[in-house]
Amino acid sequence: MSEGFHFEVARCDGSARTGAIETPRGKIRTPAFMPVGTAATVKAMRPEAVKALGADIVLANTYHLMLRPGAERIAELGGLHKFMNWPWPILTDSGGFQVMSLAKLRKLDENGVTFQSHIDGARHLLTPERSMEIQDLLGADIQMQFDECVRLPCSEEEARRAMLLSLRWAERSQTAFAARPGRALFGIVQGGASESLRIESAKALMGMGFDGYALGGLAVGEPQEIMLAMIECAMPHLPHEKPRYLMGVGAPDDLLESVRRGIDMFDCVMPTRAGRHGLAYTRLGRLNLRNARHAADPAPVDPLSDCAAARTYSRAYLHHLIKCGEILGMMLLTEINLAYYEGLMERARGAIAAGRFEAFCAETKEAWRGGEARAI
Amino acid sequence: MSEGFHFEVARCDGSARTGAIETPRGKIRTPAFMPVGTAATVKAMRPEAVKALGADIVLANTYHLMLRPGAERIAELGGLHKFMNWPWPILTDSGGFQVMSLAKLRKLDENGVTFQSHIDGARHLLTPERSMEIQDLLGADIQMQFDECVRLPCSEEEARRAMLLSLRWAERSQTAFAARPGRALFGIVQGGASESLRIESAKALMGMGFDGYALGGLAVGEPQEIMLAMIECAMPHLPHEKPRYLMGVGAPDDLLESVRRGIDMFDCVMPTRAGRHGLAYTRLGRLNLRNARHAADPAPVDPLSDCAAARTYSRAYLHHLIKCGEILGMMLLTEINLAYYEGLMERARGAIAAGRFEAFCAETKEAWRGGEARAI
Repeated sequence: MSEGFHFEVARCDGSARTGAIETPRGKIRTPAFMPVGTAATVKAMRPEAVKALGADIVLANTYHLMLRPGAERIAELGGLHKFMNWPWPILTDSGGFQVMSLAKLRKLDENGVTFQSHIDGARHLLTPERSMEIQDLLGADIQMQFDECVRLPCSEEEARRAMLLSLRWAERSQTAFAARPGRALFGIVQGGASESLRIESAKALMGMGFDGYALGGLAVGEPQEIMLAMIECAMPHLPHEKPRYLMGVGAPDDLLESVRRGIDMFDCVMPTRAGRHGLAYTRLGRLNLRNARHAADPAPVDPLSDCAAARTYSRAYLHHLIKCGEILGMMLLTEINLAYYEGLMERARGAIAAGRFEAFCAETKEAWRGGEARAI
Repeated sequence: MSEGFHFEVARCDGSARTGAIETPRGKIRTPAFMPVGTAATVKAMRPEAVKALGADIVLANTYHLMLRPGAERIAELGGLHKFMNWPWPILTDSGGFQVMSLAKLRKLDENGVTFQSHIDGARHLLTPERSMEIQDLLGADIQMQFDECVRLPCSEEEARRAMLLSLRWAERSQTAFAARPGRALFGIVQGGASESLRIESAKALMGMGFDGYALGGLAVGEPQEIMLAMIECAMPHLPHEKPRYLMGVGAPDDLLESVRRGIDMFDCVMPTRAGRHGLAYTRLGRLNLRNARHAADPAPVDPLSDCAAARTYSRAYLHHLIKCGEILGMMLLTEINLAYYEGLMERARGAIAAGRFEAFCAETKEAWRGGEARAI
């Protein structure tokens, strides 16, 4: 494991576990939810406010930053932490996922992916070596191997091809990774919806030895059962003493079910994106504040929330702001949602430490039921 | 003057003056700049942050709020202060200006204005009586008479007609005004770009007796000299002991020149709107952060600003955020600009109190010169 980067499991409860990753930039309490800061900003949030909600680490997107403002530019300006005024840990993805989902005219071969920017059409090449170079220029504390992520459903043959390519790219990523104290490189398990491919991928990556292991290519539209099955089959083949990261997940229920199966880290745009569109995640389930039923409701989003915005502003006001497209509505709902996600992780950590994670899950899910309809 | 609403001039320096309006909801230090909270939110700002920048009062728009969410709705929810979580003073305009600038299919007659909403095309009628009723339902601390605002340039005949109609509407507004302790009603001087019409309007309004006097129909595209001439001719006809409010103004230089001529209150969308479009107002003049010259500039907007955002974030980062359309860019620049405006007013008050307003104006304008090009 990289010098200065340490993970320790403090307590297990079934397959769920709580612990911490120690890095020179700060401790990441696990299970951890990482807010997504795509273009060097968690949308509609100040960095100090993200930290105050309990986030120990944020994710930034290699694809977006390589296009704007450019990795070399950020390096000249002192690195991503300084650029975005976030002095705490940052994880960067490899760019592979967005190349597949956003870029135009992709051409993939053994070497990497040539694509056109979705912003200005400029041609770019992303390879394992270039992805690692960009992540090093950004100065990310946790860097991800370059991989190919297939859409689900896909054929076993296609999933196998992409998984094997991702393994070869994992080796090249490892070779290209600029090891520096406190910086870690994670491998990514691929294999589509195939248990045998996932197991093969996990074993091969474990053989190479990474600082942590991610599950990629999930939460791309498949049913939750498939995602959970893929977690379950991969887990036994990943080392207990390394962090396990489920990429791009998810809804609050996905988080609980994945923590239950041994996942330590998550990232997802859901709380931030949903907030900008008027959806609130709360103790009592989801609340769609665009709905006309909230137009005259003086109740706050949740009077028992730890988040001042959830206690202070009426649903009627939030409804009004969202209907008018007001930025303040997006700011408040983003904060309410991130506070909910970070609070859920905090309570999950506490429940695991207390050996009552199953009861915690049951209580939490019970409170979600019928949430929106329930009077407060 | 309304019970519970008091204005006192503490010190004059030439025609400039500093003092305070006392209301049950708090003190308004003058000269005062009122951030614009059009739809019950100062765009991209939390209310407590607006207050922390030094704003004692915000403006809200009758036209926007009558359409969405509706004045009766806000009253049911406990009034505008509670609705928007701003417990300090609020001034509402009469709706007349936006009816002219935003609404569709306007039809104006002696009674009032029939118009179609720019949002959903619904028909509405705004009269002096309805405007006062709406402002009472909102619960505004300072309410404005209903007036007709003509575009400049316009003929003397047209300006005269609108001014005389506004005087008749001033009387109807005064009759309809629901006097309550601590609530004030201001009259509005009209008369286009004509000195004689402005004087006639000011005298007639003074004869009716209002709690304060505004100058309307200025800063609508005319040169600054005309605006300043209109202020100068009206001032001798307005009572010294009542607040004077220049509506919809303006750029920092307009504020200084108007304070110099005896204006006590201002509102303008400039700092908030310009901020959302990448323009920063600073001690050293305006800075257009969209400009490519800022793309690699590690300097902050102003290292000597009282505003943390102006000292903390690099111009390169703000440039990046604005180019990407990121909400955080709008949030930070709105705050930087409102901080600059409120700080300018605070320093103006201090300079007047110290009897050195002219020197303050000269120093401030000197610092603005060549601002953007200057290295920090």
